[in-house]
Amino acid sequence: MAVERTGVYPGTFDPITSGHMEVVRRSLRLVDRLVIGPHINVGKGPLFSLEERMEIIKEDIADFPQADRDRITVVPFEGLLIHFARDVNASVIIRGLRAVSDFEYEIQMANMNARMEPAIETIFLMASDRHQFIASSLVKDIARLGGDTSQFVSKKVFERLKAKFVKK
Amino acid sequence: MAVERTGVYPGTFDPITSGHMEVVRRSLRLVDRLVIGPHINVGKGPLFSLEERMEIIKEDIADFPQADRDRITVVPFEGLLIHFARDVNASVIIRGLRAVSDFEYEIQMANMNARMEPAIETIFLMASDRHQFIASSLVKDIARLGGDTSQFVSKKVFERLKAKFVKK
Amino acid sequence: MAVERTGVYPGTFDPITSGHMEVVRRSLRLVDRLVIGPHINVGKGPLFSLEERMEIIKEDIADFPQADRDRITVVPFEGLLIHFARDVNASVIIRGLRAVSDFEYEIQMANMNARMEPAIETIFLMASDRHQFIASSLVKDIARLGGDTSQFVSKKVFERLKAKFVKK
Amino acid sequence: MAVERTGVYPGTFDPITSGHMEVVRRSLRLVDRLVIGPHINVGKGPLFSLEERMEIIKEDIADFPQADRDRITVVPFEGLLIHFARDVNASVIIRGLRAVSDFEYEIQMANMNARMEPAIETIFLMASDRHQFIASSLVKDIARLGGDTSQFVSKKVFERLKAKFVKK
Amino acid sequence: MAVERTGVYPGTFDPITSGHMEVVRRSLRLVDRLVIGPHINVGKGPLFSLEERMEIIKEDIADFPQADRDRITVVPFEGLLIHFARDVNASVIIRGLRAVSDFEYEIQMANMNARMEPAIETIFLMASDRHQFIASSLVKDIARLGGDTSQFVSKKVFERLKAKFVKK
Amino acid sequence: MAVERTGVYPGTFDPITSGHMEVVRRSLRLVDRLVIGPHINVGKGPLFSLEERMEIIKEDIADFPQADRDRITVVPFEGLLIHFARDVNASVIIRGLRAVSDFEYEIQMANMNARMEPAIETIFLMASDRHQFIASSLVKDIARLGGDTSQFVSKKVFERLKAKFVKK
Repeated sequence: MAVERTGVYPGTFDPITSGHMEVVRRSLRLVDRLVIGPHINVGKGPLFSLEERMEIIKEDIADFPQADRDRITVVPFEGLLIHFARDVNASVIIRGLRAVSDFEYEIQMANMNARMEPAIETIFLMASDRHQFIASSLVKDIARLGGDTSQFVSKKVFERLKAKFVKK
Repeated sequence: MAVERTGVYPGTFDPITSGHMEVVRRSLRLVDRLVIGPHINVGKGPLFSLEERMEIIKEDIADFPQADRDRITVVPFEGLLIHFARDVNASVIIRGLRAVSDFEYEIQMANMNARMEPAIETIFLMASDRHQFIASSLVKDIARLGGDTSQFVSKKVFERLKAKFVKK
Repeated sequence: MAVERTGVYPGTFDPITSGHMEVVRRSLRLVDRLVIGPHINVGKGPLFSLEERMEIIKEDIADFPQADRDRITVVPFEGLLIHFARDVNASVIIRGLRAVSDFEYEIQMANMNARMEPAIETIFLMASDRHQFIASSLVKDIARLGGDTSQFVSKKVFERLKAKFVKK
Repeated sequence: MAVERTGVYPGTFDPITSGHMEVVRRSLRLVDRLVIGPHINVGKGPLFSLEERMEIIKEDIADFPQADRDRITVVPFEGLLIHFARDVNASVIIRGLRAVSDFEYEIQMANMNARMEPAIETIFLMASDRHQFIASSLVKDIARLGGDTSQFVSKKVFERLKAKFVKK
Repeated sequence: MAVERTGVYPGTFDPITSGHMEVVRRSLRLVDRLVIGPHINVGKGPLFSLEERMEIIKEDIADFPQADRDRITVVPFEGLLIHFARDVNASVIIRGLRAVSDFEYEIQMANMNARMEPAIETIFLMASDRHQFIASSLVKDIARLGGDTSQFVSKKVFERLKAKFVKK
Repeated sequence: MAVERTGVYPGTFDPITSGHMEVVRRSLRLVDRLVIGPHINVGKGPLFSLEERMEIIKEDIADFPQADRDRITVVPFEGLLIHFARDVNASVIIRGLRAVSDFEYEIQMANMNARMEPAIETIFLMASDRHQFIASSLVKDIARLGGDTSQFVSKKVFERLKAKFVKK
């Protein structure tokens, strides 16, 4: 008989990109319940507020089949990821890997987390080629400078990015 | 209700090291059934025959609790990994990541596999610090040159490595 | 007034992949004449003979507009790349970059070549995301093991790969 | 008949180093017209003002033969690089590559730019060994701390750097 | 007859970790006198003041055998490392290497330093597996978020980190 | 009072390049006695026999001041490096680092060696820019193909390389 598994997918999601959404979709095959966890406090101030970032995630998963949506929750977190994972009863932390530089940071984090809490596993999904080069920060730079981000984010996020920089 | 998941952990396992065994142990948390798949044909000829490599794997997992052993099978394979995964009804391929050079090869393989069979996910586990630097090929080199490999493999593999190079 | 520039695109091309063809197409914007140069002698014996490799390249460029085809020649070479470039009056060597490991080898080669012949420039094109993970050697492995290579090479190369491994 | 090609070489150039000047020199072989484009807005405030940075570039190219100087313009830009390239009718963006970490960022940028504007090619030149380790930021650090930067920048830039930190 | 050698081990040491202490211990085999040099001015303001950082280092080396302690001095520095090395009559600069990203920065620094002062050698020690993933900055993040840092720093540093974040 | 230190510099040295010679020269500042250790058995058969490789090394160090030459011995070795180091009473193993790919292999080796023999330290010297891109294997390829290797090896090695490939 199969064990029920909960996974946590943490991130800044400022905003969520097509690359992130791909990780969400693929994670649903790996765990029974998925907690998407946007960080509450983001380094130098996020572009989108926590409320906006959560709304955007929910809008983007609204297109999923009902059965999949029922398995996802969006829970903001602060503090240590490993504590958050424990709090939501997750046994798996899910991370996307795009580049070698990601790799080095991630292997550090995964090891420190495993030392602090050996019962929680970190697993990595490699970005598919189509999403290999999409970094949230570059997407925001492009939007800020008036470029077209429609290929890198969902239609709704694209509109929100445009609104953000017109308003300003 | 939880879905039952089968994972495949492929490799040369010539011989299986403590690093590989750690991946096996951690994989058992991620999937309900685990197929360890030693390649039948190995590049320039393996040190251990397929039979020996399978025996060694079985010896090493003999120390696991019965409940865990019942979830593992050892199935040799040839041909394309993605075909093998399909044949054993696996939905997940498990790979260990140790170094940046692994990363590049693995991201290539994972992407080619995903293009050929999108329904099968490849996930990666980062080697823990203790196993970060253990490569099968180096272990064999050390054994060949009369060095002490006891820290890198199980006691049984250590004996077999010694026997291999004394006999020669 | 513009200077006429000739570029050399050297490689094993065993066989030419969609990734290589993309470099060819993009190179045509950078130089006025392009020499595609398959190596005559390839490490451990190529899968396709030199004649086949040249034929395949020609078949693949047959789909190009006439004006582009007129600017391409396919010239096999042996010996030092820098000598070959000089012999065909090229001022530019073109190389595709896919991965960090490519990068290290290529920076070595480019520097050694620049020391031997400073008048010839080496330029690099980054593989686009769609071709980021296509390595000739993996394509051949997949074909050899009965996998489907149709996404990684042209239709004609796909047929030739299949024929190669059925015949054997 | 040869097509006239314009290239853009963008950068912070705060200040231009011998490594940058080497890229300029080599680019002149690859394109007929070269636009050196210093960014108007630089992250945390540049050491040299835009006016100074432009002056420095012009001083450094003043030593070039007249025929080469006639092919270079220095045009500051803000906004998206790909828009700038289009505005100056460039078909080529030129980037120097020094290190693996450059590589990862650059492959991201090149791919995002290619998706937004496929008609403009990004090409990369590998830094020659002599300039492999010269980073603008390190040069400024050295100058700030009273070290000797004469090997990393032109004589004029060296004087300006000294003046900058004496004045302060 | 042996030459007496002095080595400098520079760093932020905010705070000193078990990884740093391992470098100190191993350095004592390579040089006769070791100067541990905490930077006076640290980027965005250190967590621990210079006085605290020096105290912590001294506490951590207090456990060393007397003969070793006699060979170590702790000397804060500002300005250029190469000037500092010269001032304390060091012929060797010692650096720890943990990750590929370290490597790139370090090879730049080592080369710039060698150009400025060829008589002083920079040598690198690879972090051992146990300390491979310990970065000061991550240790501070963990402490800040209420995580347990006892595996990454000495008992005394652990207490100080805890005090730091309780007080705040 | 200073401790006398012996270092081992192992390698294939097939043939010794200017990059290797730079490591030798710099090592003399770090240790009192230096053992240059060419491997007896080299992978796929070396270009130069062990006798030739030793002769070449001796020729190249013949230009050193007498006091330096007196501190160097050339001792071929087979078997495990760590055993060899112990046999010649070395406390230090010296390795040159050129590229990221070196780094990964070297950190593996250094860690495995440290686990087997913790009393022997491995230290790394970064190749200086002039020697950053010189790989023995590329030098041999260039010589084999009739290229000019005079910038990458000493005058004597250059002559020997030429002779090698003319004779053939």
